[in-house]
Amino acid sequence: MGEYNVAIVGATGAVGTKMKEMLESSSLPIASIKFLASKRSAGKEIIFNEQVYMIEELVNDSFEGMDIALFSAGGSISKKFAKEAVRRGCVVIDNTSAFRMDKDIPLIVPEVNPEALKKHQGIIANPNCSTIQMMVALEPIRKKYGLDRVIVSTYQAVSGAGMSAINELKTQTSQMLAGEINIEANVLPCLGDKKHYPLAFNALPQIDVFAEDDYTNEEWKMINETKKIMADDSLKVSATCVRIPVMTGHSESIYLEIKTDNITTSNLKEVLSQSEGLILEDDPSEQIYPQALNAEGEKEVFVGRIRRDLDITRGFHMWVVSDNLLKGAAWNSVQIAEKLHEMSLVKVTN
Amino acid sequence: MGEYNVAIVGATGAVGTKMKEMLESSSLPIASIKFLASKRSAGKEIIFNEQVYMIEELVNDSFEGMDIALFSAGGSISKKFAKEAVRRGCVVIDNTSAFRMDKDIPLIVPEVNPEALKKHQGIIANPNCSTIQMMVALEPIRKKYGLDRVIVSTYQAVSGAGMSAINELKTQTSQMLAGEINIEANVLPCLGDKKHYPLAFNALPQIDVFAEDDYTNEEWKMINETKKIMADDSLKVSATCVRIPVMTGHSESIYLEIKTDNITTSNLKEVLSQSEGLILEDDPSEQIYPQALNAEGEKEVFVGRIRRDLDITRGFHMWVVSDNLLKGAAWNSVQIAEKLHEMSLVKVTN
Repeated sequence: MGEYNVAIVGATGAVGTKMKEMLESSSLPIASIKFLASKRSAGKEIIFNEQVYMIEELVNDSFEGMDIALFSAGGSISKKFAKEAVRRGCVVIDNTSAFRMDKDIPLIVPEVNPEALKKHQGIIANPNCSTIQMMVALEPIRKKYGLDRVIVSTYQAVSGAGMSAINELKTQTSQMLAGEINIEANVLPCLGDKKHYPLAFNALPQIDVFAEDDYTNEEWKMINETKKIMADDSLKVSATCVRIPVMTGHSESIYLEIKTDNITTSNLKEVLSQSEGLILEDDPSEQIYPQALNAEGEKEVFVGRIRRDLDITRGFHMWVVSDNLLKGAAWNSVQIAEKLHEMSLVKVTN
Repeated sequence: MGEYNVAIVGATGAVGTKMKEMLESSSLPIASIKFLASKRSAGKEIIFNEQVYMIEELVNDSFEGMDIALFSAGGSISKKFAKEAVRRGCVVIDNTSAFRMDKDIPLIVPEVNPEALKKHQGIIANPNCSTIQMMVALEPIRKKYGLDRVIVSTYQAVSGAGMSAINELKTQTSQMLAGEINIEANVLPCLGDKKHYPLAFNALPQIDVFAEDDYTNEEWKMINETKKIMADDSLKVSATCVRIPVMTGHSESIYLEIKTDNITTSNLKEVLSQSEGLILEDDPSEQIYPQALNAEGEKEVFVGRIRRDLDITRGFHMWVVSDNLLKGAAWNSVQIAEKLHEMSLVKVTN
């Protein structure tokens, strides 16, 4: 009857910090909580629900007696420790890209495909931030009118690249405002890549490294994860992923083609206004539309600027915004934990 | 034999200042130059080619004896003074939206439709900044392979909204970096609209005011001007225009469908690499792609991230960047003046 021992892996990171916050206000019944990080952070204090905890170094035995572990410490950490955690009876909710495209591992957005949780074998993958918010906006439309095609251009915040990227943007921005000319870049567009460019007052059309067909990994994630979550390989999806100087809150310009004729923007707005986890912000006469700054700290996905394509009768455009650290990462992970509990899909070990 | 008396209207503005700079390095033979602005700026000094000039107040008689006037002081000023200038024998190159969609007035991107200059009756319109750079990138492809469809999402710089918007973004950015909470906004997204929002660390999906079908005026400009410049009403165009915290340099994520089968990205790159006013920056293996920060101060349009759509064989994606104050405004205007001279389309009055 569910009182869970919960672990956060990567507790000091941009997402890990938010996982802690989301768990503090979660309905998940928590028996105990453990904060895991690298040796460097071990011993530091962290406060959860007004109690002081000590960060522990992540080792295989960290998962002894744990029931649920939320991972967000990079793909290599997940690959190294997730299976060890499962072997010890723990359910892993992994926020990295390590297992997302693994056929046997469910990739979950709770508003979209909670049923896929039933087949889990210990690891559940949390989709990429930019994918999640698009799924919440498109699924209600797909369900009612069918979905044939998606073209998305993203406006992604720097916090998706972690604490070091946030700090780099702050430093660069101060330097540029002060009129400095030699602006250093060591993190963005992608920590693991050869070259680095300033993001301050710039737009970088590269997120993650380049891969097949000159698409970046981030673009491939949006394309492949969308097809997996919507369980439709025939869905046409293309993406252009761009980083802009925003701290938190991804925005997306989405073009979609549905499968039904004679649908109006009013029909779409009605469907979306009744959808879970989504807030319609769409009133041009009052200049109401989603904004990254307003989405920060909110759990919902915000949708607006819904309008008909001027040439294609089944085509529509929309603007979709969400907090990439919350619905795009920490909140979606905690929501998965809540769903697992609701559906009695966690075996409690003690 | 062309020695022209030239006037700049709106000489103190973000674009007017760049018009002066572009004229300093232009091949246009200039006999005299005059700087016109509002009463408030009259009497201030301005330096052109190392000589000091006095800014004069704009009145109807300012255009007596002038041959070419470059206007960039807002649509209402153009509507009030352009015809007066023409009546006095002056050719007007107007950078505002006042006359762009007027059937009898040519709308010119010199690399695309210089022939349309021949029909001018005194006023020539300079297209919208976001339209111009898209035209330079798409026209070579349209000419060779035909163009059926365009979907564009823009990432526009604040300098397109003028000096007050630039200053507002600087102030807001400093305040946010300092942790201030009450951020004032009085200019953006659009000076003439009811509500104002901060742009610092934000993305605003509104440029200009809202108009028919919930598209903004900026979006309508891109749609209608594209059809007029390419002289093709059947071309499918849709646009989502977004302001981001960049000082100068508009970026555009463009999806296009051509009319020819079996075309590869190599074909497109070859065509573009031979095109006028365009620089191909496209090498993913070296992380080479256009960036707003790099485009600042350059006259060319930069194109990169060219890739095949994964589902539609005639579909392609690209990333197009240019300095919105130069090719998007001042340089395109001065280029029009040079073309008029080259084609002997200015009557010299004295």
